[in-house]
Amino acid sequence: MENFFHQSPTRVHFGEGAVSKLAGEIAALGIKHPLIVLGRSSAKKTGAYDDTISALKRLGLMWEELWGVRPNPTLGKVLEGVEIARRAGCDSVIAVGGGSVIDTAKTIAAGVFLKDVWAAFDRNGGSRLIKKALPIVVVLTLSGTGSETNATAVITNEQTGDKWNIGSPHIVPKVTIMEPKYQIGLPPKLTATGAADAISHILENSLGAEGHEPTMFVNVAVIENIIKAAGILVRKPEEVSWRKSLMWDAALAFGLGRLSGLGVRGDWLAHAIEHAISGINPDIAHGEGLAVIQPAVLKMRMEENGELPILKRLAGVLGLKSAQEVPEALWEIFAGWGLATSLKELGITEDMWETIYQKAVAFRGTTRAFGEVKREQVFKVLGYATR
Amino acid sequence: MENFFHQSPTRVHFGEGAVSKLAGEIAALGIKHPLIVLGRSSAKKTGAYDDTISALKRLGLMWEELWGVRPNPTLGKVLEGVEIARRAGCDSVIAVGGGSVIDTAKTIAAGVFLKDVWAAFDRNGGSRLIKKALPIVVVLTLSGTGSETNATAVITNEQTGDKWNIGSPHIVPKVTIMEPKYQIGLPPKLTATGAADAISHILENSLGAEGHEPTMFVNVAVIENIIKAAGILVRKPEEVSWRKSLMWDAALAFGLGRLSGLGVRGDWLAHAIEHAISGINPDIAHGEGLAVIQPAVLKMRMEENGELPILKRLAGVLGLKSAQEVPEALWEIFAGWGLATSLKELGITEDMWETIYQKAVAFRGTTRAFGEVKREQVFKVLGYATR
Repeated sequence: MENFFHQSPTRVHFGEGAVSKLAGEIAALGIKHPLIVLGRSSAKKTGAYDDTISALKRLGLMWEELWGVRPNPTLGKVLEGVEIARRAGCDSVIAVGGGSVIDTAKTIAAGVFLKDVWAAFDRNGGSRLIKKALPIVVVLTLSGTGSETNATAVITNEQTGDKWNIGSPHIVPKVTIMEPKYQIGLPPKLTATGAADAISHILENSLGAEGHEPTMFVNVAVIENIIKAAGILVRKPEEVSWRKSLMWDAALAFGLGRLSGLGVRGDWLAHAIEHAISGINPDIAHGEGLAVIQPAVLKMRMEENGELPILKRLAGVLGLKSAQEVPEALWEIFAGWGLATSLKELGITEDMWETIYQKAVAFRGTTRAFGEVKREQVFKVLGYATR
Repeated sequence: MENFFHQSPTRVHFGEGAVSKLAGEIAALGIKHPLIVLGRSSAKKTGAYDDTISALKRLGLMWEELWGVRPNPTLGKVLEGVEIARRAGCDSVIAVGGGSVIDTAKTIAAGVFLKDVWAAFDRNGGSRLIKKALPIVVVLTLSGTGSETNATAVITNEQTGDKWNIGSPHIVPKVTIMEPKYQIGLPPKLTATGAADAISHILENSLGAEGHEPTMFVNVAVIENIIKAAGILVRKPEEVSWRKSLMWDAALAFGLGRLSGLGVRGDWLAHAIEHAISGINPDIAHGEGLAVIQPAVLKMRMEENGELPILKRLAGVLGLKSAQEVPEALWEIFAGWGLATSLKELGITEDMWETIYQKAVAFRGTTRAFGEVKREQVFKVLGYATR
């Protein structure tokens, strides 16, 4: 079991009525003039926008708004936000949305103190440039990335096509409101991509587990819960109890002080490859890219390292005979949720493999669990994923 | 799934060498003159005391020491610590020990600001009297209670025999050092009582689970890990990797912002009864009392409520045919670790039942999962536990 540091300082209010805590938390943080970051329109439909505005009005505050964050959020939108926050003298950032909105908000919060925002994304420890950030508050409208309680943000530089991340304790949200009503009735595709993302996060964080760690035991249990929850929700989007389960699963998968990675060595090759793919084509949803790539990575890793303990355990939970059957079983589950499970469906062809490999190793050239990422490994994964 | 609040602000350093972070954390907290709280002698044997002192010396600090905290820690010892801390003007409390030492340290930290320390233990919301506390740092030497990352402290008033608790965000430790070397080679009995305590915490926290909650899935996984770890460690106390697992299990069981109770309704009847028992006879180890009582509570609860979802799931993990078999299976596991599994072995006889019932309902008259605690329920539990 590896050594680790853990802390999960985000104040999470979870459940029906959680948003009623928003005004009190904003007041406790001493916020006077926030920048609200939003996606396209869903925050208006679900009521999350109105609830946030009404909390601010109750406190007699003024605010700024940045609309239009899209999936695979861009540096351009971040810089737009930094510009607004600086000009208006914002003292905080409120993200009303899912992972893309939160990641944009986090980067703006750190970015107002940076000369060159993209420099913090540099693969050689750029995040060390982040010495402080504006306080971040999240009103969550889509669960999946875990960004609502973690220290990470992923942004695409639309000029270079690089989809890279920052990680810093300064960008952990101070407060997160997990109000289920904003996610009840979510379109099946969004439920499915969020769930696939969460499963991938767990596997990435703990693929190098040795077999005795509590984290490994917990992680397989969370995967099992996600599979049950998503399986129900893609058919019954209005179901409440499993929706709430899936919301908390996503936090357990990649939030809460990286709970799913404590004491175990991670891989993150699937994310490196997926970031390359959705960097090339931003229309590919991150979770769907992972649904294609993650099982292929598992296949390659087991070919080289034998049956991995976490996959053995997962095989048991899924009622499979051996860990070798896990990749196919996961593809089948993802397909059952309506997700693509082959690179062909995503329009990724063999002529792009070299670019994908180059971008993947630029993003992450070594993994903690399995060391250096080799060209033939990435090609093997892409081959398996071209089903 | 129930609504909840979550935050786990304790800065945890886990693993070999974790104690090297102690001086830096003490400096970061601005500590100048701590009171160190200790048990009898084990902190000297394991090196935890020397490591702590050397961190303080390196920082050029002066400190006070309170020695002699025993299992089932007493109000008398707390008041002794409060007196020292006030007289010497201590600005913080450092617990070097396990649950008893930590709970004593927490109560001292809050107690220096209270006129009547025991008033905070009042069953009618006495904890509301706690408005602040000195910062608490933990150097952990025995895992089990989870106190090292939670908001609770249990103290016995030796005059009344009441073993009651406080709960307040102000007494959550700021920093916890989880250094395995202090626990390697721990006597099997201490490993076993700590593990039984941790299993009980999980079951108490989630016995009312409905069946779809991530917490319930996670909790059963942690119980499984604890059973594996303790089974190995009572035979091989020097085994390192499972020792580290058990350390983290205990935190997952009842620490980290009450992770094992999030979204589920708890019972805590076994603790109410056990507190009554070890309040009567403080020589009974808390974990051993729970090993006797917890399975009996499960039996009674299932008799009244049918097969509980978490016990159904646990039955699957333990390879049992039905949840009904779980209580006997747990007793068998605890006996295999060398723990008592009958009230007879603990010297608790039928003439004490009425006192136990009275003390149990004084401690907790209703439970969130199952409502009011009735006399016949407690008697039934005590009957089952007199095997």
